[in-house]
Amino acid sequence: MLRTATCGQLSLQNLGETVTLSGWVQKSRDLGGMTFIDLRDRYGLTQLVFNMDDHAELCAQARQLGREFVIQVSGTVIERTNKNPKMPTGEIEIKTTSLTILNAAKLPPFLIEDDTDGGDELRMKYRYLDLRRNPVRSNLVLRHKMAQSIRRYLDALDFIEVETPVLIKSTPEGARDFVVPSRMNPGEFYALPQSPQTFKQLLMVSGFDRYFQIVKCFRDEDLRADRQPEFTQIDCEMSFIEQEDILNTFEGLVRSLFRDLKGIELPEVPRMQYADAMRLYGSDKPDTRFGMQFVELNDLVKGKGFGVFDSAELVVGINAKGAASYTRKQLDELTDFVKKPQIGATGLIYARYNEDGTIKSSVDKFFDEAALAQWATAFAGEKGDLFLVLAGPKEKVRKQMNELRLEMGNRLGLRDKNTFAALWVVDFPLLEWDEESGRYHAMHHPFTSPKPEDIALLDSQPGEVRANAYDMVINGTEIGGGSIRIHDRALQSLMFKHLGFSPEEAQQQFGFLLDAFEYGAPPHGGIAFGFDRLSSIFAGLDSIRDVIAFPKNNSGRDVMIDSPSTIDQKQLDELKIRSTVV
Amino acid sequence: MLRTATCGQLSLQNLGETVTLSGWVQKSRDLGGMTFIDLRDRYGLTQLVFNMDDHAELCAQARQLGREFVIQVSGTVIERTNKNPKMPTGEIEIKTTSLTILNAAKLPPFLIEDDTDGGDELRMKYRYLDLRRNPVRSNLVLRHKMAQSIRRYLDALDFIEVETPVLIKSTPEGARDFVVPSRMNPGEFYALPQSPQTFKQLLMVSGFDRYFQIVKCFRDEDLRADRQPEFTQIDCEMSFIEQEDILNTFEGLVRSLFRDLKGIELPEVPRMQYADAMRLYGSDKPDTRFGMQFVELNDLVKGKGFGVFDSAELVVGINAKGAASYTRKQLDELTDFVKKPQIGATGLIYARYNEDGTIKSSVDKFFDEAALAQWATAFAGEKGDLFLVLAGPKEKVRKQMNELRLEMGNRLGLRDKNTFAALWVVDFPLLEWDEESGRYHAMHHPFTSPKPEDIALLDSQPGEVRANAYDMVINGTEIGGGSIRIHDRALQSLMFKHLGFSPEEAQQQFGFLLDAFEYGAPPHGGIAFGFDRLSSIFAGLDSIRDVIAFPKNNSGRDVMIDSPSTIDQKQLDELKIRSTVV
Repeated sequence: MLRTATCGQLSLQNLGETVTLSGWVQKSRDLGGMTFIDLRDRYGLTQLVFNMDDHAELCAQARQLGREFVIQVSGTVIERTNKNPKMPTGEIEIKTTSLTILNAAKLPPFLIEDDTDGGDELRMKYRYLDLRRNPVRSNLVLRHKMAQSIRRYLDALDFIEVETPVLIKSTPEGARDFVVPSRMNPGEFYALPQSPQTFKQLLMVSGFDRYFQIVKCFRDEDLRADRQPEFTQIDCEMSFIEQEDILNTFEGLVRSLFRDLKGIELPEVPRMQYADAMRLYGSDKPDTRFGMQFVELNDLVKGKGFGVFDSAELVVGINAKGAASYTRKQLDELTDFVKKPQIGATGLIYARYNEDGTIKSSVDKFFDEAALAQWATAFAGEKGDLFLVLAGPKEKVRKQMNELRLEMGNRLGLRDKNTFAALWVVDFPLLEWDEESGRYHAMHHPFTSPKPEDIALLDSQPGEVRANAYDMVINGTEIGGGSIRIHDRALQSLMFKHLGFSPEEAQQQFGFLLDAFEYGAPPHGGIAFGFDRLSSIFAGLDSIRDVIAFPKNNSGRDVMIDSPSTIDQKQLDELKIRSTVV
Repeated sequence: MLRTATCGQLSLQNLGETVTLSGWVQKSRDLGGMTFIDLRDRYGLTQLVFNMDDHAELCAQARQLGREFVIQVSGTVIERTNKNPKMPTGEIEIKTTSLTILNAAKLPPFLIEDDTDGGDELRMKYRYLDLRRNPVRSNLVLRHKMAQSIRRYLDALDFIEVETPVLIKSTPEGARDFVVPSRMNPGEFYALPQSPQTFKQLLMVSGFDRYFQIVKCFRDEDLRADRQPEFTQIDCEMSFIEQEDILNTFEGLVRSLFRDLKGIELPEVPRMQYADAMRLYGSDKPDTRFGMQFVELNDLVKGKGFGVFDSAELVVGINAKGAASYTRKQLDELTDFVKKPQIGATGLIYARYNEDGTIKSSVDKFFDEAALAQWATAFAGEKGDLFLVLAGPKEKVRKQMNELRLEMGNRLGLRDKNTFAALWVVDFPLLEWDEESGRYHAMHHPFTSPKPEDIALLDSQPGEVRANAYDMVINGTEIGGGSIRIHDRALQSLMFKHLGFSPEEAQQQFGFLLDAFEYGAPPHGGIAFGFDRLSSIFAGLDSIRDVIAFPKNNSGRDVMIDSPSTIDQKQLDELKIRSTVV
């Protein structure tokens, strides 16, 4: 070893010991006849001291060292006069007696410090330098610890991690598959998995009983919205269970992660029906760190002569507690917010419950003091509250109000990154109508089982059929989702029919799974968590990029290694493909 | 849960309990008024008993169940009269009171038993059924436990598991890269990694200090010799270390795996120089479960008038202890063996050290009793031994003798699957001459550092330069290899020059790594183990196929899902590529 201790290890207990350390020069200061260097490695910082009086040559050498030089030093652990209580090694320093430069360093293009001066692009290009910074590296250490904790939890419950193939088969559903030409099978292609869904179901048919895998998945789609072409799932499946068992098992996983990694004892995770989530929050992934639930006002406000309300399918409001003091300017900002094209409301109605007990609204012409008092009751309003109301078509206005609610949550400081509210959303619809293709699509995927009592509706009211499907949501972000699967060939064929597959198409694409269902498939179900997203929530980050060591940018490019790139004609010839880009 | 206990769990301690079990019908026997069913799940077998007298209808229903039906039963745990001491649950049975068929099953195409009647092809097509068989499933359970054990060991030593990208950049070295067309960057391609080599080195430059990853890698090459297009590596890298530290750390990993998984206390792993391995075993991966080291006979046998020996570069023999009693027929078989085209010897010379003390050889014409006595001394021979000798060009004859030695090891029963001999082979050559391209290639990879004392030879005798490179070998199989890396830009550039890269090519392909070396790269090195191979050795298997859940065949095809396959023209159009196969 080129060291006897790391830079995060020594304390007063080591006084007088002769040690060897290796690491990077974080910074260096000359003070009179002394030179102090902070030596850095993954484990911490240790102060080195060089003394011109004792070792003139050594000290002169130390003064030549630049930032990020890699050095090895030996010396004696001594007590510091100027102790730094913020550093774990802050009570000691190394009186240096030898110095070797292991590698010199050019001046980095940005500061290797917690607060850096490097822009996004520069830091992506020199990702290996950005990864030296504590905040970035500690995200990846956290991610490693989470993975270890997840594996421990699942292993203890008899889950087996099984690696499923990365080179699989493209499906027509998989319009966003990455494909891989096969040299040995010219003209044919593998696809990279969007998830190991069918393989984990086959493992249940094989009697594996409890499977998991922390696994890379791939999706070739536009990378808006903080997505990456390759992402990591915690993929799980169980046999001989019902929905309740899955919810309990994986609620346990998430709670154990919070306990292990953050020392937080998460309360039992509440469950909410999809329909209620939409009604109360206008979203299937409500942020439940704060209340501010929707209040539907149709009964109260219709027929008072206000056209906007009278013609609306839904009039819905929220109570922004304590915001009655908002200025005209602040209210205008909110109106501008909901009118933004991506939100698309036509206007915002508000009512202030003033401290003097009066209620003043933007629609006083139609609603007198008594009517507004009824509003206040509906909102469970108190003096000082602000009621914000939107009206319009039900689905649209719920989405708009969801955005407004989250905005108010931000403005009122109700969305603290160190507070965690988890939620199960259950009873999702099985199918959703797709305008573009003019047919129903599976809301989760084609293997999700309908609720038995709803199967009869498949023909008459397909949109009303509920699925045995569930999502886990933390702080308004979906971190995982799954379902109880179909394990019966006839029902699976029926589902494919309803999704517009001909029997031939179904057999060609999923024949192996349909066949497998005929050889004794057990009841089973599972869940997949987005590990990047989960890590970013634990790290308190808005983006998944900084929990990924080498992420790609919004164009799917790795700017550090300059990939993707063109390849040799010879290679294309061997693969029997040709690029049609000129 | 659809069960209160698994099929491997109940014993006399549970007598009288009412339980619910779920699983597969393994087999069923009718005995008078009774029906016995072995119910199977991942955890074991439990005997169910149905009694015509008590529950006629239930018993009749049970008699309708076919093999592999999935059922749920409830009943009482009772003591068996006919105990089966071989089964963990063999002292009890379930007196069944209710039965639900969870799924019917067609008759499987082969027997789901430890010894099956299914051929390879059939079992690959119905892999999900083959995985039901105990021997196959237990391999994957073993593999899971090994992965957990590896992660525990490395985590305890401060290694961090970091996921590196799967969509990376193709290199001209990577003639066997799988490539992936990018939809967002038409005309450009990603490549799948043959190993995360450059990324793990960048993580060292980033100060991660200790990295590992159990990770899928990919190689698009002919699949002879038990290879798979996707395979799994245990990939590791450390900073501020020397070769000795790597050997100790990962010898520790392997020994801890043997302790955890097999209860075997492996002795310290011996180290052997590459040159010695070639001289004593004719192989860089000698099987050291048995001795039978090569004895070089040049000094002893030349100049006695036997042309074959006199003209040979090397005369080399082994002592097959106790094989003097081999019949003429057996010796002819050995001669035929070494003359096989893939081995290519021209003949085999032998000498028997008979029990009566005489020595008789196939070359008695040239070697009298006294000369043969000298042979015996050289071989440390005893009565009953058989000496086998080959002659020819050094490299060739060593390879031939390696094959013969392994064959004799097999014949003499010296290669027991339950005996494990690990070995470090060290000091590999840095470069090897490639006839085809007429230049030197890196024996490990271009990032391997030469031994400092040999750098001077790079220009004059490149073939003599030794590398800081090492392989771990178990029972004659290379299970891992690695090296101390170059961490200096100038030396890395020199290596690229010697490998025939122009400075421009080196910069274009590995510019990011060369650049990284200028910003303070620490001394570092690492190793990668083949996890499939390691698992197969632990499982006592000859092939890696049965430690992989869904392997591909020799043509790189997954015959279960029928992949690779053709894809839609529309998909090709979107990717801006065309197949040139008509």
